[in-house]
Amino acid sequence: MLGIQILGFVAAILTTVCWLPQALKTLRTKDTKSLSLVTQSVFAAGVGLWLVYGILVGNAPIIFANSVTFVLVVLILAMKLRYG
Amino acid sequence: MLGIQILGFVAAILTTVCWLPQALKTLRTKDTKSLSLVTQSVFAAGVGLWLVYGILVGNAPIIFANSVTFVLVVLILAMKLRYG
Repeated sequence: MLGIQILGFVAAILTTVCWLPQALKTLRTKDTKSLSLVTQSVFAAGVGLWLVYGILVGNAPIIFANSVTFVLVVLILAMKLRYG
Repeated sequence: MLGIQILGFVAAILTTVCWLPQALKTLRTKDTKSLSLVTQSVFAAGVGLWLVYGILVGNAPIIFANSVTFVLVVLILAMKLRYG
């Protein structure tokens, strides 16, 4: 069971930190042309709801993973809205 | 508590279906220039691990959400690898 918990932990780390390279690439290039605005908007809304859900059920890993993801995804969304 | 469950359900739906517009946009335009290859690769790996985790703990919502997301994200990754 510890192995399964570690697996879930690694999965959560990967699906959280993976947004850092996209945010850095977009900050550097200011190029958002191939990013879907609908995808970025709905993903940001979904991650925001996951964060609220985590707070309501008091689940620290959900709160932590979705806080970090939310900041990165909203940053990417803001650049998409700015650069088009 | 039912309201909280519905909130989690809506969050899972949003962070799953949001990948459809990106996949359709990329299929249509063949333009993947602003997508980060590292982000797409690590996200696909992470979603794949979430799927394995869901299977191991027998959690149907995790299995369902991550199966759909995995197909869409691997499709976007394949197009990124093909179109550069």
